[in-house]
Amino acid sequence: MELVTLADIRAAAALIAPAVVRTPLLRFDEGLWLKPEGLQPVGAFKVRGAYHALARLPEDVRARGVVAYSSGNHAQAVAYAAKLFGVPATVVVPDTTPRVKVEATRSHGAEVVEVPPAERESRAHELAASLGATLVPPFDHPDVIAGQGTIGLELVADLPDVATVLVPVSGGGLISGVAAAVKALSPATRVVGVEPELAGDTAASFRARTLTGWPAADRARTVADGLRAEPSPLTFAHVLAHVDDVVTVPEDAIADAVRRLAFRSRLVVEPSGAVPLAAYLASPTPRTAAIVSGGNVDPATFLTLLA
Amino acid sequence: MELVTLADIRAAAALIAPAVVRTPLLRFDEGLWLKPEGLQPVGAFKVRGAYHALARLPEDVRARGVVAYSSGNHAQAVAYAAKLFGVPATVVVPDTTPRVKVEATRSHGAEVVEVPPAERESRAHELAASLGATLVPPFDHPDVIAGQGTIGLELVADLPDVATVLVPVSGGGLISGVAAAVKALSPATRVVGVEPELAGDTAASFRARTLTGWPAADRARTVADGLRAEPSPLTFAHVLAHVDDVVTVPEDAIADAVRRLAFRSRLVVEPSGAVPLAAYLASPTPRTAAIVSGGNVDPATFLTLLA
Repeated sequence: MELVTLADIRAAAALIAPAVVRTPLLRFDEGLWLKPEGLQPVGAFKVRGAYHALARLPEDVRARGVVAYSSGNHAQAVAYAAKLFGVPATVVVPDTTPRVKVEATRSHGAEVVEVPPAERESRAHELAASLGATLVPPFDHPDVIAGQGTIGLELVADLPDVATVLVPVSGGGLISGVAAAVKALSPATRVVGVEPELAGDTAASFRARTLTGWPAADRARTVADGLRAEPSPLTFAHVLAHVDDVVTVPEDAIADAVRRLAFRSRLVVEPSGAVPLAAYLASPTPRTAAIVSGGNVDPATFLTLLA
Repeated sequence: MELVTLADIRAAAALIAPAVVRTPLLRFDEGLWLKPEGLQPVGAFKVRGAYHALARLPEDVRARGVVAYSSGNHAQAVAYAAKLFGVPATVVVPDTTPRVKVEATRSHGAEVVEVPPAERESRAHELAASLGATLVPPFDHPDVIAGQGTIGLELVADLPDVATVLVPVSGGGLISGVAAAVKALSPATRVVGVEPELAGDTAASFRARTLTGWPAADRARTVADGLRAEPSPLTFAHVLAHVDDVVTVPEDAIADAVRRLAFRSRLVVEPSGAVPLAAYLASPTPRTAAIVSGGNVDPATFLTLLA
């Protein structure tokens, strides 16, 4: 299987520069730095991969529109990118998606179709076929992976002696790109995936060195609603090639990390984005960077986590 | 009276670069960009001026230590800067200061002295004299003003055609530096100060073209605890020289702006930092930038504002 390369990621960085925020590294404590991707236009790193995927489409293909399915942040990212390119977007989201994500997606001008979680992928394929549009998958695509990998480039540029990078894992697009970039630039840096214990399918697969599917109902138990997907063969191949470990954190540690990010680092972070900090706090190591992947949290959920 | 110049501010930018975050501009909506200074190490822009003031001291003078008085964020900034330089810091804060600011100041290794609000300045002078240390004022000093002005340099570099810059006003150090930088680089850009109605002393002084003192008890009514100070002759001279207008916003608009910054821009912002957004929302104008000055808010206050 062909993996995304450093050259792919560098090319992506040039293409996406006009559409993304060059996020700074923020110091959390003596050992930890944060990469606050919630500051992106759609409130999550997903804009990097989505915009890159659209930028790579031939103009006449892109003009026929794009379709996306996602638990929310990818949908917003595709809607945002489509708006920038002036092309139509249709996004299929599970009907369990937080309202804030649905409204934000609509606010970017996309048509939103809410379906039962199990049907979202098939409905997206049907819609793309009927519209003549291009499906932009949330993680299972080299262009999406290369876009997310630009975070790794920025991270190593800003902190060249980084010893450990902690990355949330769901479908694996983020860690695939970040690990490809970081390992190419700094082979001694450890890249560690982090999952909720309640959606620890990739940690189990990593130990088994083969994809061990978990039922969607099991993965849906975690409060980290952005981490309920599972890797594809493509992303898992990147994990096996580049990632040093995949660890898990309990739900109460995720909530605690959300609170600390709010009041110590002044960031509104969704539970999925707080998972790497939870791993760091359980086992602090020097010169560590945590990718705080996004900040799209329902106000009610956020207030409950802070209280 | 000698005002701070663009050259002073450029020199400050070079000196403070190792200690501050180069904050990105974040798009809020079609017309507005945010400069999120809550991402600084101490959670507020104050680190710029405080670090610059310490950097400018002769080494032997700096070694004898520094003393600061402030409503909180300046105290943290001086403590942080002193820690970076390895010199002792004593900070005098009013005993009404939010706990989060007091604890954060102590966490940087400073000695914190809590006194009744009316005594903080006199006690700080006494302490400096008895310790042989240097008093670093929160705003009434050219080095502090030049440090805060570096925000203006970054803002014009990132958004060269900015039409309006909205800046919170308390003692006036921030708007003095920002206006000096912005007006030198982009004379057509409007620089507008924003205050809470309940602490609108500078707006009144601006209309009168002379400092009209408000009783401290009046200024203390606003929830924006960082905006309860009043300008000095030095900062007010900068305001008269460079600022186009000073406007005020009501308390409920400040709370609404805190909520929007949390859930639309994923930033934890203290009421003082939300005041410029409140002014923008009351009267949106194109190509506007708002300086979101800080994020040190007590958790209980923050939860009350979000609920």
